[in-house]
Amino acid sequence: MGRWQPDACGRMMAAALELYDERGYDQTTVADIAARAGVTERTFFRHFADKREVLFDRENALQHAAVDALAGAPADDGAMSALAAAMDAACGVLADRRERATRRQGVIDAHPSLQERELLKMAALATALAEGLRARGVAPLAAGVAAEAVVGAFRIAFARWIAPGEERDLREVGRETLAELRAVVG
Amino acid sequence: MGRWQPDACGRMMAAALELYDERGYDQTTVADIAARAGVTERTFFRHFADKREVLFDRENALQHAAVDALAGAPADDGAMSALAAAMDAACGVLADRRERATRRQGVIDAHPSLQERELLKMAALATALAEGLRARGVAPLAAGVAAEAVVGAFRIAFARWIAPGEERDLREVGRETLAELRAVVG
Repeated sequence: MGRWQPDACGRMMAAALELYDERGYDQTTVADIAARAGVTERTFFRHFADKREVLFDRENALQHAAVDALAGAPADDGAMSALAAAMDAACGVLADRRERATRRQGVIDAHPSLQERELLKMAALATALAEGLRARGVAPLAAGVAAEAVVGAFRIAFARWIAPGEERDLREVGRETLAELRAVVG
Repeated sequence: MGRWQPDACGRMMAAALELYDERGYDQTTVADIAARAGVTERTFFRHFADKREVLFDRENALQHAAVDALAGAPADDGAMSALAAAMDAACGVLADRRERATRRQGVIDAHPSLQERELLKMAALATALAEGLRARGVAPLAAGVAAEAVVGAFRIAFARWIAPGEERDLREVGRETLAELRAVVG
């Protein structure tokens, strides 16, 4: 991107979310998003494959934060302690974006194709965490089931956090959800 | 369906899988599938929205079996015992279809849009199981995290079962996977 387009990517993501919220996902075109963000359609397509992808963080900040926290957990932490650190880090990425996250989820919930894309991202997160656990010496089967369970708990914590009336920090909701997982499954 | 078309639906599903396996998913058209199954394209579209849907069981036999088993578990069984019964029932639905399941998974693994559809089905299964647990008196949060964890374990058990060299019954692999989940998470 040239200097005359600071953060065109961020502007396109914000413009898309505004438009999806205002007129609906189906009623919004790439041309609309580009116009709102002040870029050409060509620029849009240099960054995103289609109007679906603009809702998903290409840089995968959440996954990177979670995987880094997992790798950085004390070497003698067991699988669940390391995963708790990863969950905390993932929650931290979203914690101060509650309003954006809520609006985004509203768009996603209304469209199965967006829900599917979101689930694929969550599956990739589970795979990455399982790999991180194996790198820490956790046996493959234990790593796989623990990572899946914790990513499931993360999704549930996220849904609770954006529910009306919930005022707590996402990290707090995440910790409570993880404690509940351990209590019910163990 | 008329009597001259016994199980057209099953034939279309089998034909699609054969063709996807033989020439690839992208190279197969609805016309090809209809021809192989001996039906018209019109008949195909009466049963399936597109060539993607023909890979997914419209009747949702797996989810029904799991939900029924959950509901039928002894009333004083806890969440995890009831979920173990559900997992066993789900595994039982696929247990004698190993070859078909393996071929189908090969097609799905090669196509993100099919993986996404499969994940949406698994998410629906988790939601249905969480609902079934709540109906049994399990608190909503515990029901949600336990159902997600067990569906994650089911996916892992399935992947292990279709891996080369695995000879055991899916139910056995499922039980071992669930025991590992309880050991690592608890």
